[in-house]
Amino acid sequence: MSSGSGPARERRGRRPGGPDTRSGVLDAARHEFGERGYDGATVRAIAARAGVDAALVHHYFGTKEQLFVAVMEVPLEPSWIVEQVAEADRGELGQRVARTFFQVWGDPLRRGPLFAMLRSAMTNEKAAALLRQFVTRTLLARLSPMLSDAPDRELRTELMVSQLIGIGMLRYVVQAEPLASASEEEIVAMVAPVLQRYVDATASDPT
Amino acid sequence: MSSGSGPARERRGRRPGGPDTRSGVLDAARHEFGERGYDGATVRAIAARAGVDAALVHHYFGTKEQLFVAVMEVPLEPSWIVEQVAEADRGELGQRVARTFFQVWGDPLRRGPLFAMLRSAMTNEKAAALLRQFVTRTLLARLSPMLSDAPDRELRTELMVSQLIGIGMLRYVVQAEPLASASEEEIVAMVAPVLQRYVDATASDPT
Repeated sequence: MSSGSGPARERRGRRPGGPDTRSGVLDAARHEFGERGYDGATVRAIAARAGVDAALVHHYFGTKEQLFVAVMEVPLEPSWIVEQVAEADRGELGQRVARTFFQVWGDPLRRGPLFAMLRSAMTNEKAAALLRQFVTRTLLARLSPMLSDAPDRELRTELMVSQLIGIGMLRYVVQAEPLASASEEEIVAMVAPVLQRYVDATASDPT
Repeated sequence: MSSGSGPARERRGRRPGGPDTRSGVLDAARHEFGERGYDGATVRAIAARAGVDAALVHHYFGTKEQLFVAVMEVPLEPSWIVEQVAEADRGELGQRVARTFFQVWGDPLRRGPLFAMLRSAMTNEKAAALLRQFVTRTLLARLSPMLSDAPDRELRTELMVSQLIGIGMLRYVVQAEPLASASEEEIVAMVAPVLQRYVDATASDPT
């Protein structure tokens, strides 16, 4: 677009490889994956958008797949989520998880990449595989030990996650009323006991 | 592909406008929307796939939007769903809804169009609006009267639907284990009481 110098020169003072560069690349990747999906986004376009060389992107993040995983971790911040939730007593875990969900999905800056992730997973097997890894290695491995001890607690953790994904879809993507306009308080009041049920329930629960 | 005669001539013996033609067009539309999404699919391509004239498609289904809505109704069969569920006592509604869900999502022929619908809604505002209409006019209008009477029962109905959408995403799209391989019985045993909680809960429920 601009004359003469390449994009790498346009942002002076940014040291390649410094924290600014890393977050700049992640930010650019977030936009490119969000706009073009996993298939459409290229490391070259991401690098150009961040104003750095593609080789630098590869150097710091590896392959496009690995960059995608890194982008997913930014909005979700698994360590932060686990920290939020870990402070809770088991008896209030449902409510804590519901509130943490709204801190993530209620923030448009974090919601964007989450949508990109879900959208890519629906159209691309590779992206689905990466999301699958993320759910099982990160969320399951860290959250399920907090649930009541039973052989099915990984299944129950995923059912909690699925309730939250479904709310995200219906409230923010489909925007179905009254869910789209309901207050966070109102939704938390309905959903927290449901999530808590997954925390407490055992496999022998009669139906 | 073939010589001479156009696609409309290739399927002899099919009377234009008969039940065969309608279901042939719906079938073709399901494939086109599924493969190309709402934006990519065209009435012309759908007509060609069904072996009929585009004008006939417009005559029977109206616009591309209206055709999309018709396609959505096939896998979901709202009347059938409501029939399944309406027989249930309120006290077993959660379980009945969970079982009906698996009859729909467990069937690959019905699941395909559902994915197409969700995928399109995530990338196209028009498709999202149509899905929104479908959720509110069809599902909400018919299911929410079955829930316990409280001012928030439409919200609770959508939370039930969101739980099922989330399971669909995580089990069939992301294919996260152990949810992807769990038996329907096992999932129904965990989810039915949760759905039942939405059926019974009132707004004043403490959290």
